[in-house]
Amino acid sequence: MRIVDAVVTPIAFPDPPLLNSAGVHEPWALRTIVELSCGDGLIGLGETYGDAPHLELVRKAAVALAGADPFDLTAIRRTVTVAVAGQDAADRHGLTGLPDTVAKVFAPFEVACLDLQARSIGRPVYALLGGRCRDSVAFSAYLFYKWAGHPSAPPDAFGPALDPDGIVAQARMLVDRYGFRSIKLKGGVFEPGAEVEAIQALRTAFPEHPLRLDPNCAWSVATSHSVAASTAGLLEYLEDPTPGIEGMAEVAREAAMPLATNMCVVRFADIRPAFTQGAVGVVLADHHYWGGLRASADLARICDTWGVGVSMHSNSHLGISLAAMVQLGAALPNLTYAADTHTPWQDGLDVVTAPLPIVDGAVAVPDGPGLGVELDRDTLARLHENYLRCGVRVRDDTAYMRTFDPAFRKLRPRW
Amino acid sequence: MRIVDAVVTPIAFPDPPLLNSAGVHEPWALRTIVELSCGDGLIGLGETYGDAPHLELVRKAAVALAGADPFDLTAIRRTVTVAVAGQDAADRHGLTGLPDTVAKVFAPFEVACLDLQARSIGRPVYALLGGRCRDSVAFSAYLFYKWAGHPSAPPDAFGPALDPDGIVAQARMLVDRYGFRSIKLKGGVFEPGAEVEAIQALRTAFPEHPLRLDPNCAWSVATSHSVAASTAGLLEYLEDPTPGIEGMAEVAREAAMPLATNMCVVRFADIRPAFTQGAVGVVLADHHYWGGLRASADLARICDTWGVGVSMHSNSHLGISLAAMVQLGAALPNLTYAADTHTPWQDGLDVVTAPLPIVDGAVAVPDGPGLGVELDRDTLARLHENYLRCGVRVRDDTAYMRTFDPAFRKLRPRW
Repeated sequence: MRIVDAVVTPIAFPDPPLLNSAGVHEPWALRTIVELSCGDGLIGLGETYGDAPHLELVRKAAVALAGADPFDLTAIRRTVTVAVAGQDAADRHGLTGLPDTVAKVFAPFEVACLDLQARSIGRPVYALLGGRCRDSVAFSAYLFYKWAGHPSAPPDAFGPALDPDGIVAQARMLVDRYGFRSIKLKGGVFEPGAEVEAIQALRTAFPEHPLRLDPNCAWSVATSHSVAASTAGLLEYLEDPTPGIEGMAEVAREAAMPLATNMCVVRFADIRPAFTQGAVGVVLADHHYWGGLRASADLARICDTWGVGVSMHSNSHLGISLAAMVQLGAALPNLTYAADTHTPWQDGLDVVTAPLPIVDGAVAVPDGPGLGVELDRDTLARLHENYLRCGVRVRDDTAYMRTFDPAFRKLRPRW
Repeated sequence: MRIVDAVVTPIAFPDPPLLNSAGVHEPWALRTIVELSCGDGLIGLGETYGDAPHLELVRKAAVALAGADPFDLTAIRRTVTVAVAGQDAADRHGLTGLPDTVAKVFAPFEVACLDLQARSIGRPVYALLGGRCRDSVAFSAYLFYKWAGHPSAPPDAFGPALDPDGIVAQARMLVDRYGFRSIKLKGGVFEPGAEVEAIQALRTAFPEHPLRLDPNCAWSVATSHSVAASTAGLLEYLEDPTPGIEGMAEVAREAAMPLATNMCVVRFADIRPAFTQGAVGVVLADHHYWGGLRASADLARICDTWGVGVSMHSNSHLGISLAAMVQLGAALPNLTYAADTHTPWQDGLDVVTAPLPIVDGAVAVPDGPGLGVELDRDTLARLHENYLRCGVRVRDDTAYMRTFDPAFRKLRPRW
């Protein structure tokens, strides 16, 4: 079995104006879809970031992979390493490019190869990750402060959320629609006291739901201490209150709740210093930047060995990434927290024919071969048309925010 | 694909009188061979310890595995866990039983399942462990102080080795015969100064070969400091000089060479305290007690993340275990040291039809399906007859030594 064709398709899809410490989501979100074909109709799927510099490296890697054996992930990673050597793909959101460019370019190919491997033997991907530990993978309601709509367009269907009432209403909508059993608020948008009020309002409205707050490093250590103190007993975990392993460790020493991160532990080299300093109690794994599903499983095993919890991080994504997260989540013995997903914000739009549904706050693990999803080629073509037309080539929440507020700066910490 | 039959066969084979800190190898070494059959001639092989209490648990697990899917390692481990719940299989050599009885009983079944998985898809086992990182796996010459033969029998073919000259002659024989490029001496037999002299003699005779010394915790911290000082510059690593993580950490703080271990880090729960205290620089992985090849690969990844080296530990074993070590070694990016093997001491005897040969100190990684070895049923039957006749039911180097020296005691530390 050899890879005979590797197709890389950048796509764009509408995205609501979700606010965060870096700015606001643009009207178009970008992703890249990878298809590896071994002939005879056998195709493996992967999904990754859509930023142009990253896309260029993904394309170079794809060309280099012709003739490779999808079971030989070591050789495939080596080929990717050579293809991207000496090149960077750093971007404004910090998720692609250095460090670990290779891991980020390799990831969609690793997922596609596992999809190929699993399909070729008629098994789900989780069987290649050690087997299924659970029948469904839980996700949390991922709340965002947001405007009513993009300023250049009519209000979107989700409505505004700019104060505690708006946040509670948004949570109600997501919980009603998807049955989520835990709730995460993306913070770092308003001054910390306002966000604490939102958490208090959520606690009143949802007395049983575990709550999380993630300001994306918007706070100093001192502010983090203060927020941690005022949310003690309210939060399941506090995510990335402040930048850097040392700062997180300082906050962790006083905080009553575990600190979670997808910002100070993003590659294997971060683990030792972070764990040694006790900086984090929960790591949000993300196969897109950890280098695939197997690397993410390795990360989870390390977390288990150190008594650190595991959840999963999400960016705006579509159904291939969701399926990959579900296969990984099915195989992780220690997926100790419901995972993040942006799925509701895409409002049913997807590149797969039958997106895995979120019911009662969880996705049932599919037992079909591979990832368990099939590409919807008509939608793929349409979203690629979006990409060609939309003009967005890199994600830049800060620049978009500055079109409305020229004084806006991405400050970490801001408060 | 379902397991329709699980055959467990205890075997015994002749073993030379190899000396160590616990006593001396008995005339018969025990192992257990596991065969998992899925019908249609598809059989997966595993090999584990032969001690009776462990054998009994392996048999219970085997019965419970009928009908299991060999791709569902999570379910298989769960079944093994239930089958051995509340039972211990502790033995005098400390390698079976608590803690982590499950890992040790699960291991041969995990290997056999990976063999089945790989055979069913026509791939080598390493393809299921992430792919091949090297074309051959290096092993070291594993020297033992030994008598000329068992006291009740004529001298064996290996000759005596009870002083530096004898050790150098043994090393010469092993290096000539197998081309080993590194040398390990099992110490803890004579007072430390005598063993240091043996290392010095080896350095003179083999100026280029990395050397290792392993006294199996025979020394106090103070003695370990002293030996480490007098072998500085001579040893690639010093293995388990003294008992316990704290003792090892104390020795490590002063020793010029890395400390290696297969005694103070033997399960995942040991990793955090040992690594946090800097107790070890090299972990000798052993899939027989870490819970299989995947768990061993996880261990290696953790070592890589902490900058700790990886080698492989060995007990008396035959060709199924060697093949499993080679498949694992092929897949580990960070197998930083040549692995141990007792293979030469079995002098060509094996339960596989075509044992993987050691040439130039390494085993070429086989590209055939599964582990790359086939069971020799005539030999298996013969070695099972040995088992039935020999009367040995547990390994007990100490009791055997006491038949010659009633005052002998297993002391750790002794010096």
